[in-house]
Amino acid sequence: MTDPRLADLLASVPDLRLKTDAGDLEHYGRDWTRRWNPAPLAIALPGTVEEVQGIVRWANRHKVAIVPSGGRTGLSGGAVAANGELVLSLERMNKVLDFNRVDRTLTVQAGMPLEAVHNAATEHGLVYPVDFAARGSCSIGGNIATNAGGIRVIRYGNTREWIAGLTVVTGSGEVLQLNRALVKNSSGYDFRQLMIGSEGTLGIVVEAILRLTDPPPPTNVMLLALPSFEVLMEVFNEFRGRLRLEAFEFFTDRALRHVLAHGAQKPLEDEYPFYVVTEFASNDEATEAAAMAAFEHCMEQGWVADGVISQSEAQAQQIWRLREGITEAVARYKPYKNDVSVRISAMPAFLQETQALLGEAYPHFEVVWFGHIGDGNLHINVLKPDDSSDADFVTQCEHVTRLLAQALVKHGGSISAEHGIGLVKKPYLASTRSEAEIALMRGVKQVFDPNGILNPGKLFDA
Amino acid sequence: MTDPRLADLLASVPDLRLKTDAGDLEHYGRDWTRRWNPAPLAIALPGTVEEVQGIVRWANRHKVAIVPSGGRTGLSGGAVAANGELVLSLERMNKVLDFNRVDRTLTVQAGMPLEAVHNAATEHGLVYPVDFAARGSCSIGGNIATNAGGIRVIRYGNTREWIAGLTVVTGSGEVLQLNRALVKNSSGYDFRQLMIGSEGTLGIVVEAILRLTDPPPPTNVMLLALPSFEVLMEVFNEFRGRLRLEAFEFFTDRALRHVLAHGAQKPLEDEYPFYVVTEFASNDEATEAAAMAAFEHCMEQGWVADGVISQSEAQAQQIWRLREGITEAVARYKPYKNDVSVRISAMPAFLQETQALLGEAYPHFEVVWFGHIGDGNLHINVLKPDDSSDADFVTQCEHVTRLLAQALVKHGGSISAEHGIGLVKKPYLASTRSEAEIALMRGVKQVFDPNGILNPGKLFDA
Repeated sequence: MTDPRLADLLASVPDLRLKTDAGDLEHYGRDWTRRWNPAPLAIALPGTVEEVQGIVRWANRHKVAIVPSGGRTGLSGGAVAANGELVLSLERMNKVLDFNRVDRTLTVQAGMPLEAVHNAATEHGLVYPVDFAARGSCSIGGNIATNAGGIRVIRYGNTREWIAGLTVVTGSGEVLQLNRALVKNSSGYDFRQLMIGSEGTLGIVVEAILRLTDPPPPTNVMLLALPSFEVLMEVFNEFRGRLRLEAFEFFTDRALRHVLAHGAQKPLEDEYPFYVVTEFASNDEATEAAAMAAFEHCMEQGWVADGVISQSEAQAQQIWRLREGITEAVARYKPYKNDVSVRISAMPAFLQETQALLGEAYPHFEVVWFGHIGDGNLHINVLKPDDSSDADFVTQCEHVTRLLAQALVKHGGSISAEHGIGLVKKPYLASTRSEAEIALMRGVKQVFDPNGILNPGKLFDA
Repeated sequence: MTDPRLADLLASVPDLRLKTDAGDLEHYGRDWTRRWNPAPLAIALPGTVEEVQGIVRWANRHKVAIVPSGGRTGLSGGAVAANGELVLSLERMNKVLDFNRVDRTLTVQAGMPLEAVHNAATEHGLVYPVDFAARGSCSIGGNIATNAGGIRVIRYGNTREWIAGLTVVTGSGEVLQLNRALVKNSSGYDFRQLMIGSEGTLGIVVEAILRLTDPPPPTNVMLLALPSFEVLMEVFNEFRGRLRLEAFEFFTDRALRHVLAHGAQKPLEDEYPFYVVTEFASNDEATEAAAMAAFEHCMEQGWVADGVISQSEAQAQQIWRLREGITEAVARYKPYKNDVSVRISAMPAFLQETQALLGEAYPHFEVVWFGHIGDGNLHINVLKPDDSSDADFVTQCEHVTRLLAQALVKHGGSISAEHGIGLVKKPYLASTRSEAEIALMRGVKQVFDPNGILNPGKLFDA
């Protein structure tokens, strides 16, 4: 703590909790990408909005960069601090501030883990419906910063739809109360929406008012085995046409093999190239019959080769584990991750082109596919062979990402569906956003963060 | 057409349709506010995005202000051209460009009337669910510019939720394709959302990709007579708890009297101080029974004094006319309109305070109330007495608006729920948005419109 800047920080924000141990610097300086070496100046753990504001003012005086930090489960390097930044961790600001039954809102501090948000909503008989596998570790503030999606988007949309209000500290240290839970508010630019997905480059989300909704009806979970990729959209359309879908997720045989090797239970006798996990409302005889009709029609058409439907909550969880366990099961292979999207109707053509592209580009690499087919979102994970160095592997993968980016331009897609741009996707942002848009983003950043102290180098270079 | 600037405009955009007749200048220079004297330079009616771009570039060269213009049904002066501006009317750009069944999207030009959008969606067995009384005249581009709300917000949200993509020409003449119908897209700042509700001050919306949805189930419409304002939230909670509400609207006895005088049919024997029109899904015996149970419970509690339920589509329309006919019925009194909102839970306290305030402030004026109780949105129309001059009347009303704005600050509300700020609400913007937010708005405007040619003086002064 001999750095005079830190001494001034503690003088300016007297009760601030600050960490500078090597272990802490490493822990708080990186996210799940593991590609950059953490090297923050220090870790600040404010407990109040005023402390956050004090830190931002200090950072402006000293021109120290701040990396806002939630659960650091990000996959794009958005929360990496590799250049002497101050990490501003929201982890102590993790409480429910208010529940309002009439407004159906839950007001929380930004550091609250998503799972804790779920639990708090459930206590009141309601749900916060955004959900994904990192729920136990990720924070709601990070969800907002990346407009997190997940496994329920097909039914409930992205994080963006569930934010009734935000409290934000801008790059110049102003505290903004954005939208304040109003259902209708046509009073100028919606900076709440601008903040959502801005990856901590415009402001630090410190509190959020979340919209809640009714719990879904009882559901069933089905696993479907598919003989080929080509029938995936047919199966999706059949199920979507007959049922109220809560989720519709796909993965490949390679993905399944990794999850089974990681301890999951084998679901079907034989192996198939592609699988779907779908969850749907099934609360009476009519909806159960509709599910069976959809399944049987797909079997008759040859679109589905086998399947199983959950008979209990435990079995539903076993089926879900096959999909949700993938990321963890392949983590030890340091996968290079692509998280791309196209509009739903462009999916078949894009899938075909991408499959051919990756087959040619990665003959020696193992590629694990999964994704949210009903949202047009594919996750393509390339696993690092043990005999390849980290650097060589990333170089080879980035060559292919450039080809993938070209395919995205052609099909009107996005280089990041839900992970965000961060550092990992920054070189490819122009495949999704025009040069004019990127120039406007730089201009807007300048307005909210004139000294460029908030998460600099993420999303785009200044 | 002797103005050399117009000669240069026609030289730059050769096939541009331009109007300069006095009648056209008056017609296109004003909106429904009728408070400002129209005085535009000319009316341009482009037919293509390229022509719009050409006009904007010309405007930048000559520093001529542009007023983007849709159906001019606005109630805040957002489309008024009273200072030698060029009105850029989108009325010729009014076509459907694409329908996509898989994406469930309708791509339209911005000048398309809302009702034509409804009809185009219906042709494909789907609906565009944003709806309000001006549907026949207003344009979808204007809806987007003000984030229009209306009578179905309680079920479907505002315009903001239904925009999958926008094509926009910025103040510097760049054409942006924003979001391009992607369901998931986490690739930097969401300028689509920033444009929605920006009242033509950042860019001109030229095309929009609209999300469509399934038609609602069969519905019934009920008229309820209430003995007092105080029970309104009780009735709302009772109906919301038991039914899938499509709409829940209220109005006062004075409002009803004007609609009856304007030709509507008297719905009930006696008169009551307050009325509710509610529409709800009613497609089987269970939902019909739930509606009757809600009604009977409210009668038993004394919250509802009388009521009628629609027995036919024709009767449903008659009941709706009582609510939807109000604006037209009071139009001849040149009403001073307030369009305010608070969060739903703040409604009872705000209603009480506002009622007292207006009772004191306007002992000699007739005040007509109606609104969207389930969205926290109140419309307060003050009718001009015949013996009062327009100027005197507005001055007196603005005095009260200042008091109302203070009440909004106290209750955390908005000076504009759905009409937008425009010219009418500009003096009161600071009751809803902080000085820091307004300064940031000015900064963002500067980024998108560096020469300040787009709708200057609307929303805020430069």
